[in-house]
Amino acid sequence: MSGTDPNFLPLFARERNVVSLKAGEVLFRNGDQARCMYVVLSGALRIGDGNVVYEDISAGSIVGEMALIDHGPRSATVTATSDATLAEIDEKRFVFLVERTPHFALNVMRMMSQRLRHQNAKAIG
Amino acid sequence: MSGTDPNFLPLFARERNVVSLKAGEVLFRNGDQARCMYVVLSGALRIGDGNVVYEDISAGSIVGEMALIDHGPRSATVTATSDATLAEIDEKRFVFLVERTPHFALNVMRMMSQRLRHQNAKAIG
Repeated sequence: MSGTDPNFLPLFARERNVVSLKAGEVLFRNGDQARCMYVVLSGALRIGDGNVVYEDISAGSIVGEMALIDHGPRSATVTATSDATLAEIDEKRFVFLVERTPHFALNVMRMMSQRLRHQNAKAIG
Repeated sequence: MSGTDPNFLPLFARERNVVSLKAGEVLFRNGDQARCMYVVLSGALRIGDGNVVYEDISAGSIVGEMALIDHGPRSATVTATSDATLAEIDEKRFVFLVERTPHFALNVMRMMSQRLRHQNAKAIG
């Protein structure tokens, strides 16, 4: 564990369930019901809500893990800002990975921790 | 996994490293270096920064996991709002638990997910 962004590409580079988006297309919207998380394989996406930008993400990052973890609706809208490809991971595979790959679980926590720090910093900004 | 708060008490009820705080005492401050996370065994604490309140927590909750996960400094100040006891978990034990107890890892993620939803909701509020 270090201070750099976790890179999820090595674990997911050979996934078969791949979603392709054109620049401007929406992956999911705030409030949507959720069944999957995504690993960004190529391209860039923006996580936000209305005019509020939470984070810009690119290859190696994950998105959509929160709804998979707590079974709530999507908490943000994610839009491709360039052509992008994403590996689609369903809950069964996610739980399997957490159980069998502690390094994956720790990296998901690191990603969430960074997002929380980012949001906290904005809350007191 | 459900929509309710994860309860960490069953896993940590018999911890030996217990910290006791009087109401008003500070567990740690924003910016402090960190070596441990804590499980609230009894009492109540407030997570915040200056005049900003992030969350009030009580028995069964955890706090301080972010610094353990990403090795950054504490991102908030935590103050006891009543007399409180907390189990102190160091990184070695935390990683052991993630590796051997996937249910613990999923519960940590659920807690972080709820905190992110809470912060996101405030960001657009």
